[in-house]
Parts: sequence; structure tokens; C-alpha cells
Amino acid sequence: MLGVAALQQQFEDYLQANRFNQKPTTLYEPANYIMALGGKRMRPVMALLAYQIFDPQVENALPAAMSVEIFHNFSLVHDDIMDEAAVRRGQPTVHARYGTNSGILSGDVMLVYAFDYLQRTVNKSAISDMVATLCKVAIKVCEGQQYDVDFEKRPDVSLDEYLQMIEMKTAVLLAGSLELGALAAGADAENRHHLAEFGRLTGIAFQIQDDYLDTFGDNAKVGKRIGGDIVQNKKTCLYIQALACADADTRAQLLAYFGTQPDDPTEKVAAVTGIFQSLGIPAFLKDLRNSYQTQAYDHLAKVQGNEAAKQLLYELAESLLVREL
Amino acid sequence: MLGVAALQQQFEDYLQANRFNQKPTTLYEPANYIMALGGKRMRPVMALLAYQIFDPQVENALPAAMSVEIFHNFSLVHDDIMDEAAVRRGQPTVHARYGTNSGILSGDVMLVYAFDYLQRTVNKSAISDMVATLCKVAIKVCEGQQYDVDFEKRPDVSLDEYLQMIEMKTAVLLAGSLELGALAAGADAENRHHLAEFGRLTGIAFQIQDDYLDTFGDNAKVGKRIGGDIVQNKKTCLYIQALACADADTRAQLLAYFGTQPDDPTEKVAAVTGIFQSLGIPAFLKDLRNSYQTQAYDHLAKVQGNEAAKQLLYELAESLLVREL
Repeated sequence: MLGVAALQQQFEDYLQANRFNQKPTTLYEPANYIMALGGKRMRPVMALLAYQIFDPQVENALPAAMSVEIFHNFSLVHDDIMDEAAVRRGQPTVHARYGTNSGILSGDVMLVYAFDYLQRTVNKSAISDMVATLCKVAIKVCEGQQYDVDFEKRPDVSLDEYLQMIEMKTAVLLAGSLELGALAAGADAENRHHLAEFGRLTGIAFQIQDDYLDTFGDNAKVGKRIGGDIVQNKKTCLYIQALACADADTRAQLLAYFGTQPDDPTEKVAAVTGIFQSLGIPAFLKDLRNSYQTQAYDHLAKVQGNEAAKQLLYELAESLLVREL
Repeated sequence: MLGVAALQQQFEDYLQANRFNQKPTTLYEPANYIMALGGKRMRPVMALLAYQIFDPQVENALPAAMSVEIFHNFSLVHDDIMDEAAVRRGQPTVHARYGTNSGILSGDVMLVYAFDYLQRTVNKSAISDMVATLCKVAIKVCEGQQYDVDFEKRPDVSLDEYLQMIEMKTAVLLAGSLELGALAAGADAENRHHLAEFGRLTGIAFQIQDDYLDTFGDNAKVGKRIGGDIVQNKKTCLYIQALACADADTRAQLLAYFGTQPDDPTEKVAAVTGIFQSLGIPAFLKDLRNSYQTQAYDHLAKVQGNEAAKQLLYELAESLLVREL
């Protein structure tokens, strides 16, 4: 039974041994660049952890793990173009460094390789279901990204719509990573369902927490400037819920603040944060996150497999949670 | 045994019944738009024709046919963004009509659906090989597009490199369409190989002819202004071969002409056409095309299956050829 750190290492070794070395280098260098920017390799590790619940030969799940990591990075490359983002993980984004056309085309070939790695899975009988699963996930991720774009132009997005969008944009890929790992191990449909639900609900809980921490987090722990979403007028679940439960005056104040981008945002951030607090948003979101996470754990408990491996997945989810929220 | 026109109709009916009707419409409307722009549906028809060689239940190949048509249209959407093309089949390109971000994201979801349709194939045991085949093809198409971009910046592209680029950009998808149809019908590896080679070599022959006709074609038959490639200084196989066999003076003249874009290109087109003729380029390219097509037919002859169905594929290839070249 390998722990998270050992699985991360095993995946990094596999990634290193499978760097894109085809030609033309103009196509593959941007792909290697984004893949090497790192991150916690959360999705491949989840695929490997899911596999371990059903079978100890975890290296059989490395192609599936590679598939989800390549898919994730493809989506970062194309999203960064659409969002005109210049920086990712402290480095220039792919299109900022190599140009937009390279970003589009290198992203495209990465999306193809996500499927190519799936069909390298040792357990050939699982490949058809694995392809179907990646398709289902990838379609939802594209739809989620489009909803995100559309919602920026709409003043009336409900909390349910917002939660559905973040579910599609990020939570379904966590669910899919677990499902693909389980499929590679030959797990049955019921176990796959419970693992996928665990991943989906954990993903939503994590995104709610992410929005919360941007405004109410501890600067040192979060590692980015608190209030960034307020500065950028981002319609997070805090803002959406605040608009939904505010009286007419408070609602007008919020809308006014979210129509400005002052050079010095200190007063704006403080005022909006105060409004969120007066409306009880922090407690509401903490309860909402906890409710999703509790449901997630209920599903994990129903998975029939190696208990020690399940425990590792539980601990991984716990490590993502900020308990003193 | 269905003929080409009947297969085209069957595919159009399937396409109509399978229009993207999911949400958000902002994501799927651009996809429906490009798919409805038409074209001859050459690739899906080739998939269906290949299937018919081995099995009469041609509707079993409709998902594979849909897959290659969606893939082809995805590549048009993304290529048009990279080429900054405003018009496609007489209509605005997707990004010209819906914006670049829509073009990127709708293209992405179409690429996913190309895989999604494959895994809807009735013959489940073929799906793993079909996914591997689409991956192989799609990777080559991306690489070919990158070579095309790279070659525009290089003064020293050889004819072999150019032919390899057009093979990757277009011929491998014709090969792949036939291969996927054959796989859906359970054809063996040798028959698939010969069909794929037939498609690949026919595709190269067709692209050589395409370059030829742009300069030496009959205005009325080609349906676009003759000399367009010369006007735009496109490095076609005419230009590359001319540079390779010209003496120093003629070479200098060609390079000089390809460094200009005069408002009235009449004299330039006439002069460059004259140089091509004086170097024997038309006869050289006619021979080259014929040599590829002869090899293509040799492979088709080796396919073991229904001879009437093979004959339809032969006639389709012949209909693409301009015999009086």
C-alpha cells in the first residue's frame, strides 16, 4: 500500500519517463512546459488511490493517471487563453510565452493524448468504459467553462446555478479521476458510483472553501492576497448568496461596489467583507461546505474494498479541508 | 449495396437526428453552425464505403462516420482561428461569427465528441482499436498543422518535407476514415492496412492536384480565381519544386516575385506561371500525382472483400481526379 507522497513520486517518475519528445518541437515544447510547472498532481494521485482500493498493482493505473493530468493541463492552457491570463503558478502562461496559436494547437494535441493514454491501459476490457468516462467528464468541463463565461455577463445567476457551474468546471474531473482509477482496476458499477460521488462532492466542498478563503482566509496560509475576488468584482458564491439574502439597501450598496475598481481597493474590500459578515455569509458557507463534505464521506464509507486504501483517500480529502474555517 | 449519393443522404439524416441540442447553447450553436455548412461529407462517406466492403449493415458505421466528420470540422474551426480566416464555404468562419473564445471552446468540445461517437460503435470489441486509430490520426493532424505554420517561416522547405506535411494535415484523416469504417466491420489488420494506404496515397495525390489546379486549372471548373496561391506567395509544391530545379537567375526572379504583393497581380501571376512552365513543373506534378494514385489503386486491389463495394471506392477516387490535368 503506497501513501500519497510515494504515489506522487511514482507519478512524477512516470511523467519524466514519458515527456513529449516527438516532433515538431514547436508543438510539444509548450506541452512539456505546462506539464512541468508542477502542482500537487492531485488528480493522478486520486486515480492511483482509487485503483489501490481494488488492486495493489498500482502501476497499472499510471496511464489513466497520466490521462487526467494531461487533460487537466490542456484545460488550463485553453482557459488561460480565454481568460487572457498572463501568469500561472508564478510563470508565464503557455500563450504568453509561445503565442496564442501555439496555445491552441498544443492544447489540442494534449487533449488527444489524454485519450491516447487511456487506451494504453493494461486492462484492455476496461478501455471502452474509460473512454466513455473521459468523454462524459471532458464534455462537462467544456460546458462548465462556457457557463462560467456566460455567467460573467448575467446579473441574475442563482447559487444553485453557480454551484452547478463549479461542479462541472472542476468537481467532475476529480470524480472522473477516481472513476478512471477504479475502472482500470475492474471495480464494479456500484463502487465506481460511490467513489465518483465522493470525488464530486469533495470537489464542490473544496470550491466553496476556495471562495470563502479568498475573502475570509488567513493571508499567510492562503498564500495570496486576501480580497482578490472582491477587487476583481468576481461573482463568487459569497457575492451571489449575499445578493440573494440582502435587503434592498444592502443589495444596492453591493451592486455599487461591484461596479467599481478603485486604484486603492482597501476601503472597498473592507466594506464588502463587512456586508458579507453582517449577512451571515461565512457561517452559511461553512455549513454548506460541511454538508457537501459529510455527504462525500458517506459515499466513501459505502465503497467495498481495501480499508487502508480508503483511509488514504479520506486523509487526502481532510488535508484539503481547513477545519478552523 | 448503397451508392455514394445514398450514403451521403444516410449520413445527412443521421447528422440531422444527432444535432447538438445540449446546453449551454452558447457552446453548441457554433458547433451546429460549422457542421451545417455542408461540404461533400467525403470522410464519413469513405468510412461507410469501407464498412460496406466487409459487411452490408452500413448503419453500424454511422457513429464512426460522425466521429470523423466532427473531427474534421473541429480542425477547421481551430485552423481558421490560427489562420485568421474570415470566410469558410462562403460563410463567416466560427470565430468571425461567434468570437475567438467560442471558436476555441466549441472546437474543444467537438474534439471530445469525435471520441464520444467512436465509443457508441455497436461492435464494442473494436472500440479500443478505433480510439487508438483516431488518436494516431488526430496527433498527426495537429503535427501537420504545426509543420504548416513552421514552414511559412522557413525558406528551405524541401518537396519531401512539404509532401509529408500535406500527408499529415489531410491525407491521414482520409486513411483514418477508411480504417475506422473497416474496424467497425471487424476487418483484419491486413485489409485495414491496404485501405488506409489507399486513403493516404489518394489524399496526397489529391493535394498535389489541388496545388496544380490553383495555377494551371480551368477557371470555370476549379471555381476559384486561378493564381490565388501565387498572389498570396503560398509555398505550394509548384513553388518548392521550381526553386529546387531552377538555375540561379530564375531562382532569384522567383524569390523576388514571392517577396511582393502588387495591387494588380496580373503580371506577377503570368510571369511566375511562365517560370513554372519553363521548368516543366506541370508535367512533373502530373507524373507525381499519377504515381501516388497508381500506388493507391494497387493497395485497393489487395483488399479482400465485396468487389462492388471496392468499385464504389475506386469510383469515388476517380471522381476526385481531373484526368485532363
